[in-house]
Amino acid sequence: MQISSSSFITRFTNLHMVRSTSDHHQWRHNYNLKQLFIPNLSVSNSQHLPLNQSVAAIVFGGGSDSELYPLTKTRSKGAIPIAANYRLIDAVISNCINSGITKIYAITQFNSTSLNSHLSKAYSGFGLGKDRFVEVIAAYQSLEDQGWFQGTADAIRRCLWVFEEFPVTEFLVLPGHHLYKMDYKMLIEDHRRSRADITIVGLSSVTDHDFGFGFMEVDSTNAVTRFTIKGQQDLISVANRTATRSDGTSSCSVPSAGIYVIGREQMVKLLRECLIKSKDLASEIIPGAISEGMKVKAHMFDGYWEDVRSIGAYYRANMESIKSYRFYDRQCPLYTMPRCLPPSSMSVAVITNSIIGDGCILDKCVIRGSVVGMRTRIADEVIVEDSIIVGSDIYEMEEDVRRKGKEKKIEIRIGIGEKSRIRRAIVDKNARIGKNVMVTTWISTYKIQFL
Amino acid sequence: MQISSSSFITRFTNLHMVRSTSDHHQWRHNYNLKQLFIPNLSVSNSQHLPLNQSVAAIVFGGGSDSELYPLTKTRSKGAIPIAANYRLIDAVISNCINSGITKIYAITQFNSTSLNSHLSKAYSGFGLGKDRFVEVIAAYQSLEDQGWFQGTADAIRRCLWVFEEFPVTEFLVLPGHHLYKMDYKMLIEDHRRSRADITIVGLSSVTDHDFGFGFMEVDSTNAVTRFTIKGQQDLISVANRTATRSDGTSSCSVPSAGIYVIGREQMVKLLRECLIKSKDLASEIIPGAISEGMKVKAHMFDGYWEDVRSIGAYYRANMESIKSYRFYDRQCPLYTMPRCLPPSSMSVAVITNSIIGDGCILDKCVIRGSVVGMRTRIADEVIVEDSIIVGSDIYEMEEDVRRKGKEKKIEIRIGIGEKSRIRRAIVDKNARIGKNVMVTTWISTYKIQFL
Amino acid sequence: MQISSSSFITRFTNLHMVRSTSDHHQWRHNYNLKQLFIPNLSVSNSQHLPLNQSVAAIVFGGGSDSELYPLTKTRSKGAIPIAANYRLIDAVISNCINSGITKIYAITQFNSTSLNSHLSKAYSGFGLGKDRFVEVIAAYQSLEDQGWFQGTADAIRRCLWVFEEFPVTEFLVLPGHHLYKMDYKMLIEDHRRSRADITIVGLSSVTDHDFGFGFMEVDSTNAVTRFTIKGQQDLISVANRTATRSDGTSSCSVPSAGIYVIGREQMVKLLRECLIKSKDLASEIIPGAISEGMKVKAHMFDGYWEDVRSIGAYYRANMESIKSYRFYDRQCPLYTMPRCLPPSSMSVAVITNSIIGDGCILDKCVIRGSVVGMRTRIADEVIVEDSIIVGSDIYEMEEDVRRKGKEKKIEIRIGIGEKSRIRRAIVDKNARIGKNVMVTTWISTYKIQFL
Amino acid sequence: MQISSSSFITRFTNLHMVRSTSDHHQWRHNYNLKQLFIPNLSVSNSQHLPLNQSVAAIVFGGGSDSELYPLTKTRSKGAIPIAANYRLIDAVISNCINSGITKIYAITQFNSTSLNSHLSKAYSGFGLGKDRFVEVIAAYQSLEDQGWFQGTADAIRRCLWVFEEFPVTEFLVLPGHHLYKMDYKMLIEDHRRSRADITIVGLSSVTDHDFGFGFMEVDSTNAVTRFTIKGQQDLISVANRTATRSDGTSSCSVPSAGIYVIGREQMVKLLRECLIKSKDLASEIIPGAISEGMKVKAHMFDGYWEDVRSIGAYYRANMESIKSYRFYDRQCPLYTMPRCLPPSSMSVAVITNSIIGDGCILDKCVIRGSVVGMRTRIADEVIVEDSIIVGSDIYEMEEDVRRKGKEKKIEIRIGIGEKSRIRRAIVDKNARIGKNVMVTTWISTYKIQFL
Repeated sequence: MQISSSSFITRFTNLHMVRSTSDHHQWRHNYNLKQLFIPNLSVSNSQHLPLNQSVAAIVFGGGSDSELYPLTKTRSKGAIPIAANYRLIDAVISNCINSGITKIYAITQFNSTSLNSHLSKAYSGFGLGKDRFVEVIAAYQSLEDQGWFQGTADAIRRCLWVFEEFPVTEFLVLPGHHLYKMDYKMLIEDHRRSRADITIVGLSSVTDHDFGFGFMEVDSTNAVTRFTIKGQQDLISVANRTATRSDGTSSCSVPSAGIYVIGREQMVKLLRECLIKSKDLASEIIPGAISEGMKVKAHMFDGYWEDVRSIGAYYRANMESIKSYRFYDRQCPLYTMPRCLPPSSMSVAVITNSIIGDGCILDKCVIRGSVVGMRTRIADEVIVEDSIIVGSDIYEMEEDVRRKGKEKKIEIRIGIGEKSRIRRAIVDKNARIGKNVMVTTWISTYKIQFL
Repeated sequence: MQISSSSFITRFTNLHMVRSTSDHHQWRHNYNLKQLFIPNLSVSNSQHLPLNQSVAAIVFGGGSDSELYPLTKTRSKGAIPIAANYRLIDAVISNCINSGITKIYAITQFNSTSLNSHLSKAYSGFGLGKDRFVEVIAAYQSLEDQGWFQGTADAIRRCLWVFEEFPVTEFLVLPGHHLYKMDYKMLIEDHRRSRADITIVGLSSVTDHDFGFGFMEVDSTNAVTRFTIKGQQDLISVANRTATRSDGTSSCSVPSAGIYVIGREQMVKLLRECLIKSKDLASEIIPGAISEGMKVKAHMFDGYWEDVRSIGAYYRANMESIKSYRFYDRQCPLYTMPRCLPPSSMSVAVITNSIIGDGCILDKCVIRGSVVGMRTRIADEVIVEDSIIVGSDIYEMEEDVRRKGKEKKIEIRIGIGEKSRIRRAIVDKNARIGKNVMVTTWISTYKIQFL
Repeated sequence: MQISSSSFITRFTNLHMVRSTSDHHQWRHNYNLKQLFIPNLSVSNSQHLPLNQSVAAIVFGGGSDSELYPLTKTRSKGAIPIAANYRLIDAVISNCINSGITKIYAITQFNSTSLNSHLSKAYSGFGLGKDRFVEVIAAYQSLEDQGWFQGTADAIRRCLWVFEEFPVTEFLVLPGHHLYKMDYKMLIEDHRRSRADITIVGLSSVTDHDFGFGFMEVDSTNAVTRFTIKGQQDLISVANRTATRSDGTSSCSVPSAGIYVIGREQMVKLLRECLIKSKDLASEIIPGAISEGMKVKAHMFDGYWEDVRSIGAYYRANMESIKSYRFYDRQCPLYTMPRCLPPSSMSVAVITNSIIGDGCILDKCVIRGSVVGMRTRIADEVIVEDSIIVGSDIYEMEEDVRRKGKEKKIEIRIGIGEKSRIRRAIVDKNARIGKNVMVTTWISTYKIQFL
Repeated sequence: MQISSSSFITRFTNLHMVRSTSDHHQWRHNYNLKQLFIPNLSVSNSQHLPLNQSVAAIVFGGGSDSELYPLTKTRSKGAIPIAANYRLIDAVISNCINSGITKIYAITQFNSTSLNSHLSKAYSGFGLGKDRFVEVIAAYQSLEDQGWFQGTADAIRRCLWVFEEFPVTEFLVLPGHHLYKMDYKMLIEDHRRSRADITIVGLSSVTDHDFGFGFMEVDSTNAVTRFTIKGQQDLISVANRTATRSDGTSSCSVPSAGIYVIGREQMVKLLRECLIKSKDLASEIIPGAISEGMKVKAHMFDGYWEDVRSIGAYYRANMESIKSYRFYDRQCPLYTMPRCLPPSSMSVAVITNSIIGDGCILDKCVIRGSVVGMRTRIADEVIVEDSIIVGSDIYEMEEDVRRKGKEKKIEIRIGIGEKSRIRRAIVDKNARIGKNVMVTTWISTYKIQFL
């Protein structure tokens, strides 16, 4: 008699229970019959399967960040609305789709309700075909582990049983709250060409000292020789980063983007064998991998890149979205939740250097250098300048306000009331601004005349 | 100058932040413009809006239950596969849909990965139209509350900001791991007709003493006068439950099904004002509501009802699904994740009193009184009797096993190997049973001859 | 031996063919198991099933209409873009959805490609649940009938085998190219209350003599006593329509909207028994039904109603959409194909009394009293006045034009080039207007100064 | 002043109409912004874009074929149910998807209702991402052409304006009613490698003389030197097909599969310039292309291939699906419309060499060598042998039959009644077979004993 060692049998009175150790998901397998037939995973470069079969992306939805409060009061970072029509996480998910990486896991834990809902609605029409999904993995309790995810490494470790389902060869680990446009195909190819165990994206154009994702010392072969969370004190600019080491080789210190390509086997080895207590990727797993002698390489990226980690960065990123049209590059569309809102209606609008989201209602108003989000209602004689109006979830009519007023003492409609002036402000979603409100520190020195 | 009291303005250097107190979800509102226009929520009975607008269902995905271990090793209760083609939670969700209740929130926390994925895949095609969604609310951390949901009442309290979005008049609270078919329309109508604050479903046909959802003392007007978690010691059977109280009125003690209809205002009042520390609905909120003088009524249900809370109940429910065809009543279809599996292939199968899921591969075998799940592979000369074969997520071919064998030392294919005998057993998903395995305590006294 | 009379058996050599006479659709039945169980269709008013089960809408996609040429050069009427973000047929389909009528058949024949595609993309997420679908029925050849649909009655007759599938009690017949907002619930209730065989919607606010859908003579009980395609010569205005007949009763002549509620049995009887040669509903079936003694009633509608049957009407309807906000009434959302376009970008736009579709790129321009459709690109110093810019299907960049130019001799980008002036014009989709183009008959008497 | 030559302006009174000559589809462009940016279409082999961007498939839904009557009484060939769970066209569509060709147009005309519905339901979840769609193009009337499609070439010519939308480099033309599994990637690569204008798939394993798709004379370089619809009289077998021509070169005659790869420019040139009157691809365009001196190559295919063009072929293909498991090859899943039917229920079923579709209800019965389709109901003591039971669209209960009986004189339930015997028969969908019916020519010589 022969029984699989990976099964166990429990007896309940005279009822038997046979169970395999890992519980695969039924639902994901409908179209995935091919998954087990990939003949040999350690193939040479030229024989790699297409990215949609050989790479899985792991996107982090973003944690609690007090620097973004109150934008993160009820949202995780990835769910913050940006550039009138989008959520922050759409940038990274769209990068994946445009790069042909279509197995996407999103790990969420902090204020995840809105993020989970956005992801499942925006990317649910993504399904047919065996290698296409955006799957949300919310933090969960299990009998083995009653706690929350303790960090990025801990989260991946606890979800490895999910990620292992498909025979991918690399994992692409991505923070979900960064704004940039990258073709991950080139990154993966670089990783494979250099036969690295881990490839880290380095930023050549960022000069920030207090950089959250750490700094790496990179030698002339692009090998990462050291990885530290805090940058060297003497780090000044990209140009000056190169130093000559005592042994004559030169190295330079570059900030990490927090983007990692990690081989599947290496990931399993690091998390389950070498560093089983480590909780964080940047501060523990990456330095640990270097110590273990793994081949860690850097892949430099010098395009626009913004870590939306503070109110200032959020403001900057929105302003950037007006100037550079970066959000609607036609070659790499930015996906988000499909909508069918009515057209924007404008009675007398003078709009300069601004972007206007879907379905706005603009009365006699002046908008300058601003981002105006979906369903924004702006009343007569309003001036909005250098501001971000996040928009609204609903159209609230006057009669609603009257009715609600009785119930809840709300008397001001969602939107911006008559004769108000908004300058250098971020007006969050569904905010109610009454008449003649001045959200500004400035005394208007030039008159704005309405036609 | 006038500014809404419900907004606050934060200044960052010279950058302003205006924020409304509640952050509504953008994504849910695309089709929900109507929501704020319902003129008067405290209307008389005859004027109630249809259920899809006036009631929201809150379904609990099920917690950690050791009585179901190891079925819940990596799954929550609601995600347990049942009746060959379904997951447990499909029964309750289908009840909602068939009753016209189409605003459905599913709260999950324990081993929620598979449940979340099932729900978002199975019910994502549910969207167009303003009142139709199954939204998963996974446990999450926020700045205000870093902990897990502490109980059913705590979970609802923390998610009230989500549930309050739509102007429903009642919440229907449902455990997600029960099997039964109920038209909630009648329950809601009963609740409205009796002008109750809370209506609790009582089970007239259950005689279980150790009943998890509590017992209620019901008087002749169906009013619930007392609610306790543990039943009275002298409770023996439904027939005997009626007792005559000292004041001459009769009352009886009936077990609660854990299904509650709670008025929206009452829910808010109980959770936010009266019982702000309470964590559990059954043991704290319901008794509390009675103490507060709320009108709590019972609604009796006497159909088939199974609380799948133990391995025994799970076995029973599956066996019941063979006999009674209850799972595919044609009037109330049972929804689940759509599949497009190949037809079941049978070389020589003798099947009696059994149900066979989609896409099985049955060689020369005998199946009696069993539930055989999707993609089950049964090899030659196998006998399966009085068992539940949960099925498989993938088709594993011989060459896969050979390849995998090299990597991971697996040599046995998923499925049931030749000449094995399975009797009164539950074989969990993706189990590997080799050749000549006997999962049985019985010595076959009758020979099974293969044709 | 017993064999169903509705089957036939054909023998091919020694191969048998058993076939039922009617071939039901497999695909529509997955969720429709309930359909056959409705106990009694001839119930009294109060017991009628909800509209989603008891009524099916039949929408005509619109034929070849030279009055709309060239808007209908490659489109059917229903597919004409309107109000910046919509297609004409969205109005009628949205009326159905908002009235709770969710079994919708769309019959198409003329230039149907774009209409079919729009309908299947826009309303495909409509599916789960047994009573919700928008099914396109394109004209087709069969062995019995090799020709095109010969008219509205002929089309319904040939598709009756499809419509008969569900046990609805009434059909609601709708032209797909009308703009109006009607709650069909009230129409159906009126039809049922008056126990009519056919109810025709009459327009009380239209004074057009040359009205395509015919005129009905209505008596004081709302019964239709006569139905003619051409109106009476002496018909002048709604006010004067009432005439006193010789028998003392008064009657009036009202134009028909082409909207009919027809009882299922009556429809079958008229098309298959009484008037088997008739091809058109308005000119043949309705007068025929009156002759047959059927009870034909009128239901008056006096809201906004536009038959978009000419270029003039199309222009008027678009202009109306600016003024009246009728297209985005919040209570009855107008559905259409979901999009995820970028926000509209404006460098210096002065926009008055206009609506702007999603994802436009407006440089230094003035827009007055116009409808600007999706993805419209307007270059510097352009003036658009009293015009309809239908928009574009793609974003065409300068480099595209250069590349394409080599291939196809196109040198002008899609959109409106610098310093052009458009006045009282309809600019169809993907039109290429170069620099300094004047599409206008007017000499601008006032200067427009760019800031 | 400059205005695009491809636009025209019509004046209506003082209303202008500007229109581009080609009307692109708005709906398909939402995600297709990339389409126009492909720098150079005439790239060398190694630089070809992936197939999902560079190839579009054109699938013909199948015409009127009396050899399949009555299976095609209300269906086109592509919509014929096959192998218990599928429709014929699923085979070709799945081949496309599994080969990475995801721009799929399906042209339909004959009895297209069921096919259109199947395609739009089965493949609607296919959408997100710019290069994935199955678009149904039903025959339509236009002002230019009031007639039906006159043949395959005529259909493609009239729809070229649709196909030209994307900058694909090749069209893959596919009959929709063939059963086979082919990796079109290899076909396309072969086409590109040989720099052919047209590549035709030849069948090396078919010996049928009366072959509908024509025969080609192929020389030793795989060039097609002659193409005729009727094969040479002396054609006997594949082995003997090779002949030595007078000039010493050898050639052989091989039957065409009707599958063509045609370069985009060549397609346009042939249909619009060289052969503008031709209506059929096989008999006119292909010979014409050879005459025009185009490079026409053959690509041999020797796998299983069945042209389901007669009742006999249909029977054979179904029987083949039992034996060879060809329909559920795990590497290349066969897609079809997703379902969520209940599991099959069997009271005492003895099933040998058969496949059983989803959701059957089998009472005490014997099934041998048969294909049993979805929702088939088989009553007690039935024997089914060597037959195809197509299945049913609905579950019809006894009470339905009773109710319907009153209305329509139907007294027999859908399915197969007690004690009936079916042998070598095709029982079409929704057939009603009563009790004790013998659909057989055989006298059972062996007794079947029910347990």
